[in-house]
Amino acid sequence: MGHGTNRVEDMSSPNNGTAGGDTIVEIHSVCLPPKKTAFQKLKKRVADVFFPDDPLQRFRNQPWRNRVILGLQSLFPIFTWGSHYDLKLFRSDVVSGLTIASLAIPQGISYAKLANLPPIVGLYSSFVPPLIYSVLGSSRHLAVGPVSIASLVMGSMLSESVSPTQDSILYLKLAFTSTFFAGLFQASLGLLRLGFMIDFLSKANLVGFTAGAAVIVSLQQLKGLLGIVHFTGKMQFIPVMSSVFNHRSEWSWETIVMGVGFLSILLITRHISMRKPKLFWISAASPLVSVIISTLLVYLIRSQTQAISFIGHLPKGLNPPSSNMLYFSGEHLALAIKTGIITGILSLTEGIAVGRTFASLKNYQVNGNKEMMAIGFMNMAGSCTSCYVTTGSFSRSAVNYNAGAKTAVSNIVMASTVLVTLLFLMPLFYYTPNVILAAIILTAVIGLIDYQAAYKLWKVDKFDFFTCMCSFFGVLFVSVPLGLAIAVGVSVIKILLHVTRPNTSEFGNIPGTQIYQSLERYREASRIPGFLILAVESPIYFANSTYLQERILRWTREEETRIKETNGTTLKCIILDMTAVSAIDTSGLDAVFELRRRLEKQSLQLVLVNPVGTVMEKLHKSKIIESLGLSGLYLTVGEAVDDLSSTWKANEEP
Amino acid sequence: MGHGTNRVEDMSSPNNGTAGGDTIVEIHSVCLPPKKTAFQKLKKRVADVFFPDDPLQRFRNQPWRNRVILGLQSLFPIFTWGSHYDLKLFRSDVVSGLTIASLAIPQGISYAKLANLPPIVGLYSSFVPPLIYSVLGSSRHLAVGPVSIASLVMGSMLSESVSPTQDSILYLKLAFTSTFFAGLFQASLGLLRLGFMIDFLSKANLVGFTAGAAVIVSLQQLKGLLGIVHFTGKMQFIPVMSSVFNHRSEWSWETIVMGVGFLSILLITRHISMRKPKLFWISAASPLVSVIISTLLVYLIRSQTQAISFIGHLPKGLNPPSSNMLYFSGEHLALAIKTGIITGILSLTEGIAVGRTFASLKNYQVNGNKEMMAIGFMNMAGSCTSCYVTTGSFSRSAVNYNAGAKTAVSNIVMASTVLVTLLFLMPLFYYTPNVILAAIILTAVIGLIDYQAAYKLWKVDKFDFFTCMCSFFGVLFVSVPLGLAIAVGVSVIKILLHVTRPNTSEFGNIPGTQIYQSLERYREASRIPGFLILAVESPIYFANSTYLQERILRWTREEETRIKETNGTTLKCIILDMTAVSAIDTSGLDAVFELRRRLEKQSLQLVLVNPVGTVMEKLHKSKIIESLGLSGLYLTVGEAVDDLSSTWKANEEP
Repeated sequence: MGHGTNRVEDMSSPNNGTAGGDTIVEIHSVCLPPKKTAFQKLKKRVADVFFPDDPLQRFRNQPWRNRVILGLQSLFPIFTWGSHYDLKLFRSDVVSGLTIASLAIPQGISYAKLANLPPIVGLYSSFVPPLIYSVLGSSRHLAVGPVSIASLVMGSMLSESVSPTQDSILYLKLAFTSTFFAGLFQASLGLLRLGFMIDFLSKANLVGFTAGAAVIVSLQQLKGLLGIVHFTGKMQFIPVMSSVFNHRSEWSWETIVMGVGFLSILLITRHISMRKPKLFWISAASPLVSVIISTLLVYLIRSQTQAISFIGHLPKGLNPPSSNMLYFSGEHLALAIKTGIITGILSLTEGIAVGRTFASLKNYQVNGNKEMMAIGFMNMAGSCTSCYVTTGSFSRSAVNYNAGAKTAVSNIVMASTVLVTLLFLMPLFYYTPNVILAAIILTAVIGLIDYQAAYKLWKVDKFDFFTCMCSFFGVLFVSVPLGLAIAVGVSVIKILLHVTRPNTSEFGNIPGTQIYQSLERYREASRIPGFLILAVESPIYFANSTYLQERILRWTREEETRIKETNGTTLKCIILDMTAVSAIDTSGLDAVFELRRRLEKQSLQLVLVNPVGTVMEKLHKSKIIESLGLSGLYLTVGEAVDDLSSTWKANEEP
Repeated sequence: MGHGTNRVEDMSSPNNGTAGGDTIVEIHSVCLPPKKTAFQKLKKRVADVFFPDDPLQRFRNQPWRNRVILGLQSLFPIFTWGSHYDLKLFRSDVVSGLTIASLAIPQGISYAKLANLPPIVGLYSSFVPPLIYSVLGSSRHLAVGPVSIASLVMGSMLSESVSPTQDSILYLKLAFTSTFFAGLFQASLGLLRLGFMIDFLSKANLVGFTAGAAVIVSLQQLKGLLGIVHFTGKMQFIPVMSSVFNHRSEWSWETIVMGVGFLSILLITRHISMRKPKLFWISAASPLVSVIISTLLVYLIRSQTQAISFIGHLPKGLNPPSSNMLYFSGEHLALAIKTGIITGILSLTEGIAVGRTFASLKNYQVNGNKEMMAIGFMNMAGSCTSCYVTTGSFSRSAVNYNAGAKTAVSNIVMASTVLVTLLFLMPLFYYTPNVILAAIILTAVIGLIDYQAAYKLWKVDKFDFFTCMCSFFGVLFVSVPLGLAIAVGVSVIKILLHVTRPNTSEFGNIPGTQIYQSLERYREASRIPGFLILAVESPIYFANSTYLQERILRWTREEETRIKETNGTTLKCIILDMTAVSAIDTSGLDAVFELRRRLEKQSLQLVLVNPVGTVMEKLHKSKIIESLGLSGLYLTVGEAVDDLSSTWKANEEP
């Protein structure tokens, strides 16, 4: 049975086939993992962290020509599907492209207003970025353009320092600069393969954050819906609400009537489409239809009343270049970088999540790092062509998907429609009332309040619900970036807390088997006299080594008290099941060593069972295994119990 | 075999005894942990985090009178040993008390100079705090007084803003105020049972930090050893070294000769005592003897040379009250609080580590939270009686232990000796040369550079070594608090990185057994045709759920490629061994669900094996178990393989 012994030459294994008692117990020795140099280990670790998807795998064993093609395909995913693109696919893409354009035009104008930017910037941002994404992006269903959350965050962060009405040029400069830094940050995350950083925004976090932001956005729309002229630029709950009620004299009944009317239409069509996904076109078309009808209405009654405010003149023509407006020095640079990073993270998270959702529905892969580069480059290019932060919008992508989009060509179709609008149709928006834009935003963001997800968090994981509430109330009452930071902090503390106070449980044997399981969970499991079997459910680190040591000693004390009370067999051996100890550091090794020493003083033996590869390696290097003695290490709890009991028996019956 | 089914009523268990193939496979169902309300769970969690030692356990089932006694004992540990204290113990304590006094007096004077404080403050600090500790502290061997690291840190942090020579009163006020806040912080950590926070200073961290600080302290002593008059107040490597070489004209050969002479004596005696612990008294006595001899020497040659600087006049008398010097407003308050917290953490870490070391040697318990309160109250009281930050010193505690100290009475004896010195012997230190103080500090801190520990870190755990180097170079070249912060940050990132990129490994069966182990480690383990068995070695959290999902899909792809190349049996089932998955959150649950969905699309079955209690509970609550179907959950890998293969066989042979 000497298998594996050639790998652990420095540990003789006399455990094999110990013939102590009346039965021969078969014992397997614990192997060390194959030897690797420190460099090999570092290489593997780096590959794990930065290249978990093994991106070069496809290139292996390929002739030179294929490698070039594969390389081009991975840089420009358009080459992957471009070669077998046909008329049938094109027909689907045209239909879906026109559908999302009908959503994108009113939403683009509305979201730009949310970011305190001129409405036309929203249309510019629906033209250039989708074109770039369609070449670089790997999702086939992502509908690219301005989105509500990023618009809100940019608007709230920039307007705290610079007034968008008084300093409009500076404000515009800062918006483009933030967009540039957002893109730079996104592309760098992708290039440096640090995409995993966005994983730290957990879903619980995002549910809370999105709902909080949606509530604020909705409340802000009261400005438009009630026709208030003087409104706060702040984004917290209290100033917004007080602004609504302090300007009651400005409320205009005409605006309110029109707003409530169109809002009801939009909400009803949204409800119908949600009930029957096949009728997606009803909710997709209703914003544009509402814009047209309301514009006509305002045009017709323009001589009767001045109470309903409208957009006014919009410049005609293509995106003007804006690279000369980027702002790389001066006192507001730090603000622009900060805004860029935060809107960058948020829009990236949304874009990737949306991309993954639809990729998973159609069973294709979206590569996170590549998507980051695509979104990043699209924003950097956008910042030079009068666009602000864009990403994949969830609502428009869903419409795109339902409308039957097959490839990124639907984005090209949408961009072309926006182009036509920019070139010829801008004067038509002159009389579009602001109240309809508020109604469109409200309808879009109401869907972001995912109370069902929050309820599920509450039911399944109270701590996740707590994180969710932290970001919700943080965003609502403190501020957007701080709320986000608080929630990320809470998530990280959860991980640290789990590591700092890991669970240990006492195991027993399920009679008639070699299975050892938690005594608390398996009522039929029973203690083995003379043994205390403990499972440690966490890596042993500096942050928990003292705790674990004390906790195991407390288990021992409690077990001894229990034995005394029940007159049981004296405790002889503590078995630590290390299966779930996925790592150990030097403090952990010291703790194991110290634990062994302290147990020895109480004439108790310490036995380790099934340490995983890396742990085994470190136990070996730190010479703890030698100090544990020859019978201190087993592969399974069952073998440890059998071997030790038969040894004890043999010693008793000389 | 229906055990446990009464606890999982909502999951029928038709797995039991599936008679599919030609053999009857015995299958155990996976149990849910006993039901607990959210409140019970929270209570257990809070108890785990804040009361892991179960402090009230001793009070249970005790009559009222005993409870009072136990309560007094736990508040004032002096009651624990006070009642059976006798003459024999007292004799040991007197010997050890006098021995540490002979070390404490010269070290007290020296360390105060290290903190840029008047030398007498060092003696004051060796009088009041030891007395308070002897009543409140639970360690029997801790020798309390000023220590080098905390003195250095306080000196370096305060003198960056306030000059100790020009603003000496303000500097003294800030020192006492910092001491007060250090004590307040320490006591609060203990009271709020947040002691685990100091665990985040890992051993690797401390080795690097201490060595870095020791190097700086040593270099600073060049001032005294070379007799330089004008020296930098900064604490980084570069300004200190340039200060040494820019003032070459001030070097004094008399001072250098005397310094090198006494330094050699001190180092030789230290070496002897380290070689033979029984001769501890040689190194314990040598500082005082050196002080006496050098003072005599300076006194005798005082008319020949003025080159050797000496202490000069020291006030006689007891600690003056200093509560009126505490400083609770004004511009430097933030600095005092920051200095207090950092010196508080450092001195606490040292004190607790020293206490634990000697407690473990004599096999008694030192309660971390209680020690924190003792050290905290001692520093708060100290700040009102002209003392600065004190804690248990490692070097003096080791001498105390070797000299045979039995209880905290040795601290009382030491304090009494210091009292006599303060009252009557102060004039004798008039001619004590500063160079001898530098030599004493150098000898004390050289032992703090634990290069063996650093080498062990390098050998066992490269990442721990990296952390160690971060704090070493951070302290040496950046600054003390920043170096510490960097190192803690690196340690936390290590934990997060481990969680973000957990290990997964492929398992195989060890022939002839029911043992499944890593294929990489156990060469004799072999794959089971049709199965891919993967073990996940980490909790599944938001931070790794995407990674794990992608990684498992990659395992599947790689396995299918391997099968294609070797013409093996088609893959039918992925078994995830969840033994080491110690927790799961909602993102993790979503990932499992999504994984199942995607594998299903490839006609692969997903089976979970042995989820731990909390994970099982969440799987159950989130309805994933139901979606996995009836045969998606097993207790062991062996049972899963046996049951599924026999089912497949049964389906093939109708």
